[in-house]
Amino acid sequence: MTPDPASAPARTWSRRRVLQAGAGALTGAGLGWSAAAVALPVEDSTDRTDRTPGALPGARVVEFHGPHQAGVSTPPPAHLSLLGLDLRRGVGAAGLARLMRLLSDDAARLTRGRPALADTEPELAFTPAALTVTFGFGPRIFDEILGGAVDGAKPLPPFATDALEKQWRQTDLAVQICADDPTTVAHARRMLLKDATGLARPRWIQNGFRDAYGMRPDGTTMRNLMGQVDGTANPAATDPDFAELVWSRRPGLTGGTFLVLRRIRVELETWDQVDRAGREAAVGRRLDNGAPLTGRDEHDVPDFAATDALGLPVIDPASHIARARSANPAQRFLRRGYNYCVPDPSRPTGEDSGLVFVAFAADVERQFVPVQRRLAELDRLNQWITTIGSAVYAVPPGCAEGEFVGQALLGMRR
Amino acid sequence: MTPDPASAPARTWSRRRVLQAGAGALTGAGLGWSAAAVALPVEDSTDRTDRTPGALPGARVVEFHGPHQAGVSTPPPAHLSLLGLDLRRGVGAAGLARLMRLLSDDAARLTRGRPALADTEPELAFTPAALTVTFGFGPRIFDEILGGAVDGAKPLPPFATDALEKQWRQTDLAVQICADDPTTVAHARRMLLKDATGLARPRWIQNGFRDAYGMRPDGTTMRNLMGQVDGTANPAATDPDFAELVWSRRPGLTGGTFLVLRRIRVELETWDQVDRAGREAAVGRRLDNGAPLTGRDEHDVPDFAATDALGLPVIDPASHIARARSANPAQRFLRRGYNYCVPDPSRPTGEDSGLVFVAFAADVERQFVPVQRRLAELDRLNQWITTIGSAVYAVPPGCAEGEFVGQALLGMRR
Ligand code: HEM
Ligand code: HEM
Repeated sequence: MTPDPASAPARTWSRRRVLQAGAGALTGAGLGWSAAAVALPVEDSTDRTDRTPGALPGARVVEFHGPHQAGVSTPPPAHLSLLGLDLRRGVGAAGLARLMRLLSDDAARLTRGRPALADTEPELAFTPAALTVTFGFGPRIFDEILGGAVDGAKPLPPFATDALEKQWRQTDLAVQICADDPTTVAHARRMLLKDATGLARPRWIQNGFRDAYGMRPDGTTMRNLMGQVDGTANPAATDPDFAELVWSRRPGLTGGTFLVLRRIRVELETWDQVDRAGREAAVGRRLDNGAPLTGRDEHDVPDFAATDALGLPVIDPASHIARARSANPAQRFLRRGYNYCVPDPSRPTGEDSGLVFVAFAADVERQFVPVQRRLAELDRLNQWITTIGSAVYAVPPGCAEGEFVGQALLGMRR
Repeated sequence: MTPDPASAPARTWSRRRVLQAGAGALTGAGLGWSAAAVALPVEDSTDRTDRTPGALPGARVVEFHGPHQAGVSTPPPAHLSLLGLDLRRGVGAAGLARLMRLLSDDAARLTRGRPALADTEPELAFTPAALTVTFGFGPRIFDEILGGAVDGAKPLPPFATDALEKQWRQTDLAVQICADDPTTVAHARRMLLKDATGLARPRWIQNGFRDAYGMRPDGTTMRNLMGQVDGTANPAATDPDFAELVWSRRPGLTGGTFLVLRRIRVELETWDQVDRAGREAAVGRRLDNGAPLTGRDEHDVPDFAATDALGLPVIDPASHIARARSANPAQRFLRRGYNYCVPDPSRPTGEDSGLVFVAFAADVERQFVPVQRRLAELDRLNQWITTIGSAVYAVPPGCAEGEFVGQALLGMRR
């Protein structure tokens, strides 16, 4: 078997510098936390078990500024809060620029463990906990505000398996907040929503979770609520074609990417009625360690040609991985989803569970759509999953200190 | 100043043994996690920054069995999920015993990092992450099922500041699930709800959060979403009167306690309009480190007699701590609340925030009610907080291996 670029270990996330908030900030005896959490560079502390003496995990800083926005190739922390916002009526290019300047400034401060300007709860900002804030622009921004000047976000075509609910619809803007501390996420969300409120209003908030920081061995792939190891075959930041797959080269969006959001409900009640063999066959991987049914270890390359004693394929051609894996290596993308599980008294189990499926791709039409089309046509998982929300956003490139996200893009307006 | 038992540092939570799941379980090279996570005793690893080499925080086990139920005097981990269940029509003492046997067995296994019986996602059980499961019985269990044989949970009297919403009403049972990992909590909740479903149905689920594990210095008191240090003046497990305050001595409930649940919404929008001095005056403590306005450090004892240059009291007699603190030291109780923040598109901010206020007391009428009555009468915080849910549960004593929670109690039925 030749090594498969699609199945490099999930641990090789981008080695974007993760900084530590200044030593004084979070190690204080008693409660002497300092508001002036100065960022000091520390090499490669993306290792989730990093235990630098005196440096708390809560002090980890992921740089906001840079050629790419953070929150794409950076390691996914425990908590996600994805905000869908619509610009208020009458807000045009100037208003959007004002909004993005405001929110970029908030994000730059908060991700460093510093209060936002006019932060009314500054102390809630002192634990950055690897906070990232990532902004995306929906199709209407490109069509109406940029007047078609930039080839930007386009709606997905409909898929047969979609059962979209209006409450999770496409919005003008997406703000993806991720951090390892739930209070940090709540505070950042609140500051951003507060500062947005004059110009935009929230339509939905989608919260999600993965493993808490440090709970499992470093490099462990997350599990979803179906019990599956989820995220194994994902482009790694060290793959030679990672940049090509993820970072856009389109005018106005060079260094940016596209975010595809699918809110996918999972019917855990009926899933649990299937025996283990049936559930493993549906995905094509083992439940215990995520290995393909033709392999032994999680990162073994699946052998779709292998047959059993009866001559039947070991990995069902209708299984999720057989259908999702592309023969064409250019039809790959970065999955960075989170579990969701929200109380819902209308359901017999009392809750609604699934995946906030987030994917990043340089070209949605070429990389993502063919795969989603194939899965909608045939995928044994479809029996238990339903896509109830869908949206696409262009993620502008990152910005430098003093600039704001989308600045160059807005300058290209027709 | 004499040391005040009410303000001992929050870090001195009960030194109930916290065990580590067997070395093999979570340190596996690659994904060789073992289902047989054997619990090995480790002294005093309630220290939240414990970094025993080779032992992951995810492997921490809080013993389920013992004279008291876990989840009361044990350190509060990052995540809470509190389930309110009603017995199905016709379920009596025998049904309740069957339910409690089933759920106690689930809890005993899951808290050790072992799958529940017939666990369909066993791998989601392997990270106990200090999981606790605590059961409470509502008033109807005592009145109708126990026929008044035991002096148990009683409804609270109404308070002027209540604005109770039916959706958060008193239920027959409460199941309090706490752990440091959100996936662990989700899995435990699902297993318990699944096993309960034939005999009881969920009415509500109240999720909450505190600091994630290891993010802040050990012993740091949590902050709520108003930005306040919250939990400073709380009985500590090392206080001489802790047992008296928390553990019941009533027949049938000896070693148990009572759980008071108040769901309290906070109007953060109007809170943020008040300046810092006004907000500090409302509570009587500083926002930066939680010190009383008459002190310097968080755990300094407030001096309610101190006056300023104008002869006015430094701590407003209408402030939250002036009103909440009892001259009578027997009118104290253990607060173990969590922040909540849930999406709510009907609110301008897009979310509904507050406190899942959980208090434990040996005697609710004597310890809790006078304080709540005083606060309802006058408390400067009342301007921003509204109690929208309320319930009281008797928490039976813990059980030994092979027994179930409530076993002795159910045997006392009239
Ligand atoms: C609730 C919905 C879904 C669940 C539970 C799920 C689960 C999984 C699992 C368990 C794997 C195998 C482990 C791994 O490589 O990550 C996998 C792989 C994959 N999934 Fe999904 N998935 C879901 C939806 C989707 C969707 C909507 C897409 C794209 C349209 C997708 C695309 C992929 C791809 C590309 C792979 C890797 C295939 C390979 O190259 O081996 N999945 N998924
Ligand atoms: C959203 C609602 C509430 C908020 C934001 C809140 C906040 C606070 C804060 C910041 C403190 C000072 C720090 C500390 O000692 O923990 C405090 C103390 C206290 N609170 Fe509350 N509280 C709330 C509701 C309640 C309720 C409903 C009760 C009981 C009925 C209560 C009882 C107490 C007590 C007994 C103290 C300690 C007073 C002392 O001895 O110094 N609180 N609370």
